[in-house]
Amino acid sequence: MPEGVPAAIPEDGLTARERRLRPALIVNTGDGKGKTTAAMGLALRAWHQGWSIAVFQFIKSGKWVTGERIALEALGAEHERSGAGGEVEWYATGSGRRWVRKPGAEPDQADAAREAWAEVRARLVEERHNLYVLDEFTYPLTWGWLDLADVVATLRDRPGAQHIVITGRNAPPELIEIATTVTEMHKVKHPFDSGQKGQAGIEW
Amino acid sequence: MPEGVPAAIPEDGLTARERRLRPALIVNTGDGKGKTTAAMGLALRAWHQGWSIAVFQFIKSGKWVTGERIALEALGAEHERSGAGGEVEWYATGSGRRWVRKPGAEPDQADAAREAWAEVRARLVEERHNLYVLDEFTYPLTWGWLDLADVVATLRDRPGAQHIVITGRNAPPELIEIATTVTEMHKVKHPFDSGQKGQAGIEW
Repeated sequence: MPEGVPAAIPEDGLTARERRLRPALIVNTGDGKGKTTAAMGLALRAWHQGWSIAVFQFIKSGKWVTGERIALEALGAEHERSGAGGEVEWYATGSGRRWVRKPGAEPDQADAAREAWAEVRARLVEERHNLYVLDEFTYPLTWGWLDLADVVATLRDRPGAQHIVITGRNAPPELIEIATTVTEMHKVKHPFDSGQKGQAGIEW
Repeated sequence: MPEGVPAAIPEDGLTARERRLRPALIVNTGDGKGKTTAAMGLALRAWHQGWSIAVFQFIKSGKWVTGERIALEALGAEHERSGAGGEVEWYATGSGRRWVRKPGAEPDQADAAREAWAEVRARLVEERHNLYVLDEFTYPLTWGWLDLADVVATLRDRPGAQHIVITGRNAPPELIEIATTVTEMHKVKHPFDSGQKGQAGIEW
């Protein structure tokens, strides 16, 4: 990204420093690739700042261990060992291998998503972490598994300087409204369209 | 991303396994955030596969050390120490703090970009790495610092199973043509628009 030259100075009574430190609520949405990987790339920056990082996977199963998880947990272990960077906690939910195809068909997964959200909520109140990655969090919202109004109020009114990144298609307008940064990953060309299959090291 | 169900089976004479292993050429372009971070998130997956990873930064200066660099280099060091994951090499070019504002104004940086590309080219011929991240590579192309036809032919005809990720705005059509995956990071909401300044842990 280009060096940050603000397009406008808002009349919000904040100093530049206060604005600079305003907690981010980032939403990566759209039908293209890069939503989760961009969140994980951000976690690298957070790690270097010594931030406490928590990743909550709302759909991908804990049984389906991804490369990003192994790598970020290796950085968490490095923090434990040497004090470099920040701590990394990983919370995987979801009972299926990777995806729920039929909303409502797997109540276990809805329960798991509600449990994960309750955990996020509790940690936000405690100001437990500096960065929360809520991966594929839009789906339990879209599918009605979570109360959107509760989620929006909890995120909007969170205390302190807790940064949040949310990924998933079809982010609800209410979420976009309270976000500081929204990027739509738009699919221009996708390997699955030409018969390419997912491959290790690229898709997981 | 949803589990890969190909939309069509191409008549290319390849087996599913050959298609699965087709080397990726991924382009993250557009005016939104997440182009570089998505490339770095992909590097986490590659690391877990034990792949050799090389990151070439075409614009960001080596003097401007980012969180993603420190964190990925920590993973590279972990590989050296324990054999986990893959090796990580970082090649930073660019003479400015972070950005060239006036194309053509800094010939040193054009030379540095040409040098970096020559290095990428030589390594592709040797099949030196499994994943190349060419960060902000579209700019030296757009600004005429590199020969687009040479770049396109070199990338397209690269031997073996070498995966490439290219980031930057305004990817040239010739590059999009040869890519396997193209995502446009589209800016829906950007913190700089409302006077927010860049902050450590988020923008670098």
